[in-house]
Amino acid sequence: MNAPRDPLLHHVPELLPRLLPTAMLEALRERFGARCSTALALREQHGRDESPFDVPPPEAVVFAESNEDIAAVLALANAHRVPVIPYGAGTSLEGHLLAVQGGISLDVSRMNRILRIHPEDLTATVQAGVTRNQLNAEIRQQGLFFPIDPGADASLGGMAATRASGTNAVRYGTMKENVLGLTVATPDGRLLPTGSRARKSSAGYDLTRLYVGSEGTLGVICDVTVRLYPLPEAVSAAVCSFASIDAAVRTTIAIIQMGVPIARCELLDAHAVRAVNRHDKLTLREAPMLLMEFHGSEASVAEQAALVQEIAREHDGTDFEWATTPEDRTRLWAARHHAYLSALQMKPGCRCVTTDTCVPISQLAASIQASIDEVEASGLPYFIVGHVGDGNFHMGYLIDPAIPAERATAERLSAQMVSRAIRLEGTCTGEHGIGLHKQGFLLAEAGEDAVDQMRTIKRALDPNNIMNPGKIFG
Amino acid sequence: MNAPRDPLLHHVPELLPRLLPTAMLEALRERFGARCSTALALREQHGRDESPFDVPPPEAVVFAESNEDIAAVLALANAHRVPVIPYGAGTSLEGHLLAVQGGISLDVSRMNRILRIHPEDLTATVQAGVTRNQLNAEIRQQGLFFPIDPGADASLGGMAATRASGTNAVRYGTMKENVLGLTVATPDGRLLPTGSRARKSSAGYDLTRLYVGSEGTLGVICDVTVRLYPLPEAVSAAVCSFASIDAAVRTTIAIIQMGVPIARCELLDAHAVRAVNRHDKLTLREAPMLLMEFHGSEASVAEQAALVQEIAREHDGTDFEWATTPEDRTRLWAARHHAYLSALQMKPGCRCVTTDTCVPISQLAASIQASIDEVEASGLPYFIVGHVGDGNFHMGYLIDPAIPAERATAERLSAQMVSRAIRLEGTCTGEHGIGLHKQGFLLAEAGEDAVDQMRTIKRALDPNNIMNPGKIFG
Repeated sequence: MNAPRDPLLHHVPELLPRLLPTAMLEALRERFGARCSTALALREQHGRDESPFDVPPPEAVVFAESNEDIAAVLALANAHRVPVIPYGAGTSLEGHLLAVQGGISLDVSRMNRILRIHPEDLTATVQAGVTRNQLNAEIRQQGLFFPIDPGADASLGGMAATRASGTNAVRYGTMKENVLGLTVATPDGRLLPTGSRARKSSAGYDLTRLYVGSEGTLGVICDVTVRLYPLPEAVSAAVCSFASIDAAVRTTIAIIQMGVPIARCELLDAHAVRAVNRHDKLTLREAPMLLMEFHGSEASVAEQAALVQEIAREHDGTDFEWATTPEDRTRLWAARHHAYLSALQMKPGCRCVTTDTCVPISQLAASIQASIDEVEASGLPYFIVGHVGDGNFHMGYLIDPAIPAERATAERLSAQMVSRAIRLEGTCTGEHGIGLHKQGFLLAEAGEDAVDQMRTIKRALDPNNIMNPGKIFG
Repeated sequence: MNAPRDPLLHHVPELLPRLLPTAMLEALRERFGARCSTALALREQHGRDESPFDVPPPEAVVFAESNEDIAAVLALANAHRVPVIPYGAGTSLEGHLLAVQGGISLDVSRMNRILRIHPEDLTATVQAGVTRNQLNAEIRQQGLFFPIDPGADASLGGMAATRASGTNAVRYGTMKENVLGLTVATPDGRLLPTGSRARKSSAGYDLTRLYVGSEGTLGVICDVTVRLYPLPEAVSAAVCSFASIDAAVRTTIAIIQMGVPIARCELLDAHAVRAVNRHDKLTLREAPMLLMEFHGSEASVAEQAALVQEIAREHDGTDFEWATTPEDRTRLWAARHHAYLSALQMKPGCRCVTTDTCVPISQLAASIQASIDEVEASGLPYFIVGHVGDGNFHMGYLIDPAIPAERATAERLSAQMVSRAIRLEGTCTGEHGIGLHKQGFLLAEAGEDAVDQMRTIKRALDPNNIMNPGKIFG
């Protein structure tokens, strides 16, 4: 229990693990049989995510197969004051899944049924473990799609819990805009619906939006009702290279300010392009690049594309290249989604410290440039990818985990970037969430009174602090 | 204090008014001077809204001119356990402003400064008392507009508090999607920001969305940061008449299902058209009508319009008529916004009981038709207007307030309609809020556990129950 502490977690108050009482473990085994496991390999698999933190694993893993399973685990855990950490696809980036106070990892990945699709209403209700690719494969034949795309094939429950967004958010919004309602299990084991299937409602407090982004700290998301969209009649993607990141970002700003309904507008810096060229065997020009996509009727896509091409030209964009076939588009977007892994392979054995600031779009160019100046001065290798249409970008610092000085440098650079984003009226996290690591940033951004309100809500809805304790705030 | 009770409020538990202690009144007078008044006329003006309920007025009215004024009133009220009811433009429909437990009406209408406009980021921050027309007049010269349009010239603070939407929501969303952040005053007199100016954020609980739609029960909204949009290059409006409401609604359903980015799609039934013809001296065909608007580039508007005209023709839409000049469009939309007042004039001395259900769009035609069958059988005069693109419609029952049987009939019809909407997975209120009158409906819709969660949040954030007590839940 007293494993050495991950030095990256120096910001986070040290929490004592709470023991899993034998009585509770026996009750779990009785109900769940082999679906409750304390095998070390399984616990370790459930005790890490895509974050770089080392924390001892949970004490047991339980696989839920129904809402009632979830409610039963919570009722038991609440009675025994044992932490419960919901686990979906394991793709979170901020240590959301880590058992900092021990307890149970509640795996909902077997809750992977698509419960209802209403094509005529453009809605679907899915169990929390359904992934976005699974949903899209299912609804494509009905001419529909679900646009939220955080890169990883995350579960819808996890995406709701972190308020995920990704490449399509500039046009379609984030999970905040696209979740109509949830069924959540409360810490005392009740199941409650938070919304209807109506497109809008003014019926009381917006419980849906309270759970969306709550990172598993208020309850467990059992199912998710989302908005769907008709597959666009026409889709067209394009890449365009620029002499500088500044020119690429200024192009983006102009596109947004003119109200072009662009569906995706992604920035890759030269490092990221180089990495994906190598990983995906592409021959993209190794310069700052915008990767864009347009959705609409044939005529509207053509019109948007012409307008964007004109804007890009004004900013000396070159090598404007179209990908109109589905295969070409898929190759490009696959490369974009591989950027993170591709970059890791540029420095064998490295780990990546990823930032996630989001600023008002007028501040984006200055914000990125200052961050580049700082990282260049530090000598750390890095890459940038960004959902720049939203003012959101990720800088990945590639560090050698064995060299504490590199970790410290990455932390310092990240903190500088976040301070700047907050000064510019932006946020420390556009889409990854707070988790373990950004708790100090949240305090700096929202202020003590706002974080105190969040804590008050947490205490009221989870008085025994069993739901993913130690996340968002200490 | 023991005025006879409005019989329309029989659903609502009777609450004892709490007295305003002399010490508090004196403290208010000392700080606010003439801005604190107990004059009966002023109190009566602040003791009613557009709802049909008769409740005794608040005991005093205080005019706030700054965030600090608001915080000061709340700190005092909290110390003395005195209710505070925020008051903006007085346009709410569900009794939100009524002083059911006495207390102070806190009028923020003098907080009417536009604090900051960032055209390059498409954001504006305004004090809570700024109205939507005021904001739009100010930003029009910069080529921008704020789309949320609930009809009345409501204040932005009030619109946020009721999660308002209106005619443009089908394309631009509601206040939920368009508020980036708020400054709120908490019941203990702290001022806190709930969001940044970033387009998206995953930084902790979504306090913004918790206050949006909280109907003044959790705190006072001091200022509102909203998203703005570039004025579309081209705008075109059209009316089209149909042989039946069913045909008009089926046209709407097809438009939405095909993903046409229509900006407004409003239904008026023959009664509503007749009323606005008379009130606005128009000559619209007195049949079910869709009033639509398209935003975009010239080419895109033309394309949308052609597609919609084709869909309408398939449903035997006739008299398709375009309004492309701003003057013609303004006349049409003014008429739409006068529908409520125009209908009231069809039955002199009447009051209107208005419904606000919103259902999944596939259920809209059946939902409206069943409601028509019921009201026709009752013999009450009525009219229908609807934001049908969202599945939201309002039926107005015109009753003689002196005839209790008419009130009872309207109540029965309304309850039937709400039960049906809930059965169809819709909501009792798409945009007006719960207020006083829909508390039973909220319970039926959300269930006891969800309402209990709302109450738990309320108790945690407003432990002395001073913020607009008796609203949303008893």
